[in-house]
Amino acid sequence: MPEINILTEADLRSAVSLDLDAVACVENAFRLLATEDVVMPPILSFHVPEHNGEVDVKTAYVPGIDSFAIKMSPGFFDNPKLGLPSLNGLMVLFDAKTGIVKTLLLDNGYLTDVRTAAAGAVAAKHLSRENSKIAGILGSGIQAHLQLQALTLVRNIERAVIWGRNREKAAACARECSTQLGIEVIAGSIVEVMAQSDIVVTTTPSKEPLIKADMMRPGQHITAMGSDADYKSELAPCVIPGASVFVCDRLSQSIKQGELRTAIAAGTINSTEMYAELGQVISGQKPGRQSDKDITVCDLTGTGAQDTAIATLAGARAEAVKAGTAINS
Amino acid sequence: MPEINILTEADLRSAVSLDLDAVACVENAFRLLATEDVVMPPILSFHVPEHNGEVDVKTAYVPGIDSFAIKMSPGFFDNPKLGLPSLNGLMVLFDAKTGIVKTLLLDNGYLTDVRTAAAGAVAAKHLSRENSKIAGILGSGIQAHLQLQALTLVRNIERAVIWGRNREKAAACARECSTQLGIEVIAGSIVEVMAQSDIVVTTTPSKEPLIKADMMRPGQHITAMGSDADYKSELAPCVIPGASVFVCDRLSQSIKQGELRTAIAAGTINSTEMYAELGQVISGQKPGRQSDKDITVCDLTGTGAQDTAIATLAGARAEAVKAGTAINS
Repeated sequence: MPEINILTEADLRSAVSLDLDAVACVENAFRLLATEDVVMPPILSFHVPEHNGEVDVKTAYVPGIDSFAIKMSPGFFDNPKLGLPSLNGLMVLFDAKTGIVKTLLLDNGYLTDVRTAAAGAVAAKHLSRENSKIAGILGSGIQAHLQLQALTLVRNIERAVIWGRNREKAAACARECSTQLGIEVIAGSIVEVMAQSDIVVTTTPSKEPLIKADMMRPGQHITAMGSDADYKSELAPCVIPGASVFVCDRLSQSIKQGELRTAIAAGTINSTEMYAELGQVISGQKPGRQSDKDITVCDLTGTGAQDTAIATLAGARAEAVKAGTAINS
Repeated sequence: MPEINILTEADLRSAVSLDLDAVACVENAFRLLATEDVVMPPILSFHVPEHNGEVDVKTAYVPGIDSFAIKMSPGFFDNPKLGLPSLNGLMVLFDAKTGIVKTLLLDNGYLTDVRTAAAGAVAAKHLSRENSKIAGILGSGIQAHLQLQALTLVRNIERAVIWGRNREKAAACARECSTQLGIEVIAGSIVEVMAQSDIVVTTTPSKEPLIKADMMRPGQHITAMGSDADYKSELAPCVIPGASVFVCDRLSQSIKQGELRTAIAAGTINSTEMYAELGQVISGQKPGRQSDKDITVCDLTGTGAQDTAIATLAGARAEAVKAGTAINS
């Protein structure tokens, strides 16, 4: 069997950053998802109720990408009590032609963080007003930070407002973002975020909607990336029907574990046929924003195609600099 | 993060063999599957038609086992043209309490071979006549060899008959088995296998049934382990209703990708409610063989619970002898 290359989180942080290359990589994954015969099975997901854990497995075979990744993402939410992080995980990269294991990416969730933030940049690039200047973030965790950084890659963001359930954590997040990105970042309420921002990204694990339809303003773009399970929701049921344009990364996933789920359950949406996937907007198959007055909403649940794309990029970059540990098995 | 231990196929071959310990390990997994709140999601399965490939991902959280495995099994059937094996794969072992990655088992399918053969031994131990002496095997690949070996662990097998589509390969398999196991093993037709054997194990990827109902003899036990996909079948639709007792490893899987699928499609079975799972027979919840005249049939599709059990055993054994390469990530 061919050698297997093992990459640590440090190797992967050296190989891939949240930059325009990562954004282009994820944008290409969405384009291929809309234009090629991508094989992306439903997410394998299970709970470990005894230990407050859940595990997701995502994958996709994407014609045009020479490897496919299988990603395993455990989240065990009592871990902090044991001094351990809640989230970890790894990806395995297989040769797309032979199915043979090529690379083990022991990223502890780092590549997921990057590809998720990069998807936020792709959504903003294709749906927000080009002259967007003020960003709003709901949530104050890692994705709050990374999503704001991602927006600065594709729009000329001058100022940002961050809301978090924990005010001190939100203020600290705002200070850190300001220092890192060199722009003014303040903490505020959800109402303030919605009143001021051209682009809003929601990054929370909320079970109750945070954004109501009457908070939305003409010209605004909202990306909801927090909900990825059938008990989470960040947008009130009237938000999607209240938007001029609604787009999601994958319709089947948005219906099952994204923002379409709660809107359908509440009866504010009867049919999802008219909605576009992000790749269809990128490839020009379906329209996105039509005017500066449009309110655009994008729901991101996270796709195996993104994982395959970012893992392939990371594997190739690591190989180019001979990073990692080779194992024969 | 805690260290991750990486085990090669060689490490794993040293740690675990097809022996009575492996049989007990898999038997315990089936018992727990019937008696505990095991979380075993449906198999994640997808095809890569461009390269004649398919990929299965199996997993199970089993209360009473301190790790859970996620197993990735690619099968790319054009690989032999490239000088590569069709099957490979690996398992990842996670701590059941924290979801943190403990061990990477780069087994190239070895542990699957062992746990699959061990399941054949478990089925024979609980369903075949204790005085079974003659074994029959359909197929002449790795599992043909291992299933026969597994039977010798639980029954006093004195003689075996092997059938294979390729006569020369079947004869070679018979010679090798005879040498390794020290018993008489000959090649024969399916009719000869069925006429002579107390226990028959089918190990083929056949799409057409090999065993017809009128070939079965009173007292015989048949284990069908080849079908694990919705296009495979080794038993004619009248075999299951023609048996005195039918048992499978997992009803939902046998219905979807095992031998119940074709029987249901052919209309020879209307309801599957009365059928037992192997763990229910092991734990005494449901009856198995009632007399020496009964014909018993067991369908094995392969369960994530077996993978979790054998991977946990392998990981613990390797740790005990400090095998493997530790990586910090």
